[in-house]
Amino acid sequence: MDFFEAVRSRRSIRQYTNDPVPDAIIQKALEAAVLAPNSSNTQTWDFYWVQSPEKKAKLVHACLNQAAARTCAQMVVVTADPRNWRRSQKPMLAFLEQVKAPRIVKKYYKQLVPVAYTSGPLNIFGLMKWIVAFAIGIFQPMTRGPHFKGEIQAMAMKSAALAAENFVLAIAAQGYSTCMMEGFDEWRVRRLLKLRCSGRIAMVIAIGKEAERGTWGPQFRIPLSEVVHII
Amino acid sequence: MDFFEAVRSRRSIRQYTNDPVPDAIIQKALEAAVLAPNSSNTQTWDFYWVQSPEKKAKLVHACLNQAAARTCAQMVVVTADPRNWRRSQKPMLAFLEQVKAPRIVKKYYKQLVPVAYTSGPLNIFGLMKWIVAFAIGIFQPMTRGPHFKGEIQAMAMKSAALAAENFVLAIAAQGYSTCMMEGFDEWRVRRLLKLRCSGRIAMVIAIGKEAERGTWGPQFRIPLSEVVHII
Repeated sequence: MDFFEAVRSRRSIRQYTNDPVPDAIIQKALEAAVLAPNSSNTQTWDFYWVQSPEKKAKLVHACLNQAAARTCAQMVVVTADPRNWRRSQKPMLAFLEQVKAPRIVKKYYKQLVPVAYTSGPLNIFGLMKWIVAFAIGIFQPMTRGPHFKGEIQAMAMKSAALAAENFVLAIAAQGYSTCMMEGFDEWRVRRLLKLRCSGRIAMVIAIGKEAERGTWGPQFRIPLSEVVHII
Repeated sequence: MDFFEAVRSRRSIRQYTNDPVPDAIIQKALEAAVLAPNSSNTQTWDFYWVQSPEKKAKLVHACLNQAAARTCAQMVVVTADPRNWRRSQKPMLAFLEQVKAPRIVKKYYKQLVPVAYTSGPLNIFGLMKWIVAFAIGIFQPMTRGPHFKGEIQAMAMKSAALAAENFVLAIAAQGYSTCMMEGFDEWRVRRLLKLRCSGRIAMVIAIGKEAERGTWGPQFRIPLSEVVHII
């Protein structure tokens, strides 16, 4: 499907038919998801593809039993965990060695990425980073984070959202529909996925074939001129 | 361009040629950006399209003079401001009236959205929301936020990221390249854009025609099996 057609056809669908969604459709969308750009290519995202009917029932319940969750054929939970930078670092460094990347790139992944993703106990290292950035920033432009735990978490969340957008568009491009859900009980979903403390749930995505009344009306956006500012 | 081809062709390009990027390309990508799904359709994002050469020079400086910023033809800054829910509420309610939306949908936008986006001074209202959600959550599934200012901010940031991903893919689908930059001096960029306190910068996007050595090597991703968990 044409790119712009996929973007236009994607709507948040809240009611699905009983048609199944083949696993190959989900698989292809997951492959597209991980091609999204992300912070320092640390790939701190995770995708929980819920296939067990028992777990799906629990997830639907945790999604407040909303129609999109209840009627969809497949569910994928997108999570963000900044501690995952450790997972990609070793293969990344091996890859950089293999493709003979410039020394500065290797240095970035070896030394700067760990600093960026560390805030230390009680954010003490984060505070130190903030002070250094503040001092340098008086004289010249300087990055202002992420320093603290919350900022590092937000950065991982942003990357997870980029991947999630690729995912829903890839589903639309294959003729199926999705609904990104933020209305869920995070505690119950966390327990279901057995997430570690540092992981957060970005969204739960319902996937299915749109039913006749999948949305309650046409798409609404405020005029582009209100959100685009030419400076 | 085919959707999957656009996803595969998108790379973070750090060096551009001198070729200009026509405004129509940016315009079309911005139109695609705002079609992204977002929290309660509040459209809390903004896009600063930097056309003044003087402001572009300042922005390049605030982006630590990195090559992508220095050599690109166009720049767009994506920001997230949760207070923008007020901007979309009135037109949204008028639209819902016009398309005869179900009463529950109107109630959601009129009553629930303002509660979701409010944390009150010193997060006091946020704490009240947390306590109520905690109490209800003991007995049944219940949403766990956003309650506090930081959580509301993170939600807006997530929506801005979804739009930004549409934007970079739309540029790729038109044969141009982008680089999402997080390495910038947020304080200096804020001042340049005259952002109000509640606004945050999601990313600065460089747009241009890829130069011969736009990346230092092939794309690297860890195996899909490490990020996809079938449960």
